[in-house]
Amino acid sequence: MSKKESPDISISEQSEVFSLAVDGMGGDGAPDVVVAGLAIAADRHPGMRVLLTGDEAKLRPLLAKHPKAESICTIWHTDEAVPMDMKPTAALRVRKSSMRLGMDAVASGRARGVVSAGNSGAMLALAKIVVKTMPGISRPAMAAISPTIKGDVVMLDLGANVACDWRNLVEFAVMGEAFAKAVLGLPAPRIGLLNIGSEELKGDEKLRIASEVLRESPLASQFHGFIEGHDITAGTTDVVVTDGFTGNVALKTGKGC
Amino acid sequence: MSKKESPDISISEQSEVFSLAVDGMGGDGAPDVVVAGLAIAADRHPGMRVLLTGDEAKLRPLLAKHPKAESICTIWHTDEAVPMDMKPTAALRVRKSSMRLGMDAVASGRARGVVSAGNSGAMLALAKIVVKTMPGISRPAMAAISPTIKGDVVMLDLGANVACDWRNLVEFAVMGEAFAKAVLGLPAPRIGLLNIGSEELKGDEKLRIASEVLRESPLASQFHGFIEGHDITAGTTDVVVTDGFTGNVALKTGKGC
Repeated sequence: MSKKESPDISISEQSEVFSLAVDGMGGDGAPDVVVAGLAIAADRHPGMRVLLTGDEAKLRPLLAKHPKAESICTIWHTDEAVPMDMKPTAALRVRKSSMRLGMDAVASGRARGVVSAGNSGAMLALAKIVVKTMPGISRPAMAAISPTIKGDVVMLDLGANVACDWRNLVEFAVMGEAFAKAVLGLPAPRIGLLNIGSEELKGDEKLRIASEVLRESPLASQFHGFIEGHDITAGTTDVVVTDGFTGNVALKTGKGC
Repeated sequence: MSKKESPDISISEQSEVFSLAVDGMGGDGAPDVVVAGLAIAADRHPGMRVLLTGDEAKLRPLLAKHPKAESICTIWHTDEAVPMDMKPTAALRVRKSSMRLGMDAVASGRARGVVSAGNSGAMLALAKIVVKTMPGISRPAMAAISPTIKGDVVMLDLGANVACDWRNLVEFAVMGEAFAKAVLGLPAPRIGLLNIGSEELKGDEKLRIASEVLRESPLASQFHGFIEGHDITAGTTDVVVTDGFTGNVALKTGKGC
């Protein structure tokens, strides 16, 4: 059974740690699609515990239609939500948005992660300000798993960071490698740096420096070097590292129309 | 019949203007593939006149095997060629390469254009130094025609300019529009600027400025605004303008493995 909690109850009083916080109001199809998705998740992972944030008056009837979803969810009610077209700076000022409550839950240790299908710019801004990055990681990235002729590839960044320096690229490699290990279950994922040619002299300075740094890093044995656009679907590497602008264009070009 | 000319004969003595100069020694399959291609061109355009640059001892027997190619070609002999892996700065110092002779022919008015399947970095450097750009155009670009679900699209730059500013992007729009008119035969090609979203606030400053400039330009009525990766194959516009890094990755990603 789901129960209602108030988000301002302290951790000591409410010690349950949720597997995930889910933004019930995030995305074009919310909240219907979110709850329908939670029903699928509950079917696959009946032991998971979800903190569902959003408008209880809307969420409760939907959960009633999806008893499996209801069985894994606890609602944290809020009237506020971040619209899809709100600028990130404005979204940061909505103190009790459904997205923000999920972020707060992660920051306070009440949830292990947060999921939202909503405004991605707001999501990244909140992640950076509320949840913050791990030590040594300066900026969050957006990653996706894409199919290749050999299996799956993790690609990042996909648009969180339009401009990147060599340090960002190295950090994306570190995060992408960890993601591929954890999510794809690969023992030693191979990492490629997206460029316009595989020769060492191709590309710009940030790519050449990132490549040099990775060759001297603990990830050296997994670093394949530069790859090109066609290597993404060829599955040349398990992780494709690029800046957010190029990654976004490559992802959408690859998907086609 | 083909005949041999010396490249140092003055224009007054040899007044013929060639439709094209073709680098006989450029590309992995040269000179065989080049001459085979010329035979196809001769079949389609029997009236064209080609200035074929390269090693006559190699070109002559190939032309003998392709009489149609022979009928449109005049050889300018040189022993020198630009290897595929030569740096552009080094290629500029090869004074009589087959690629350079073709460029010289354009610069002196002996040929209306030059084609080479060889080292693209050398090609661009020579084009910039020998042929030079038109007034108002600061840098050459590489363009390609790609299929879409509606027809063809002209995309540029594809790798000549790894880093671009807003001025370059505007110039690419001007060149791409002219190319689409001349080659695709479109009366008023639609121009799109590749970005990570279609909203005005997306992307970086160079994209926003280029967009503003195009909206105030004589091309304003043909300027669609920002497009995304999936718009390339969707045929949303007839011309896709982007920097050389993004264009190269998008082209190769779209082609796939």
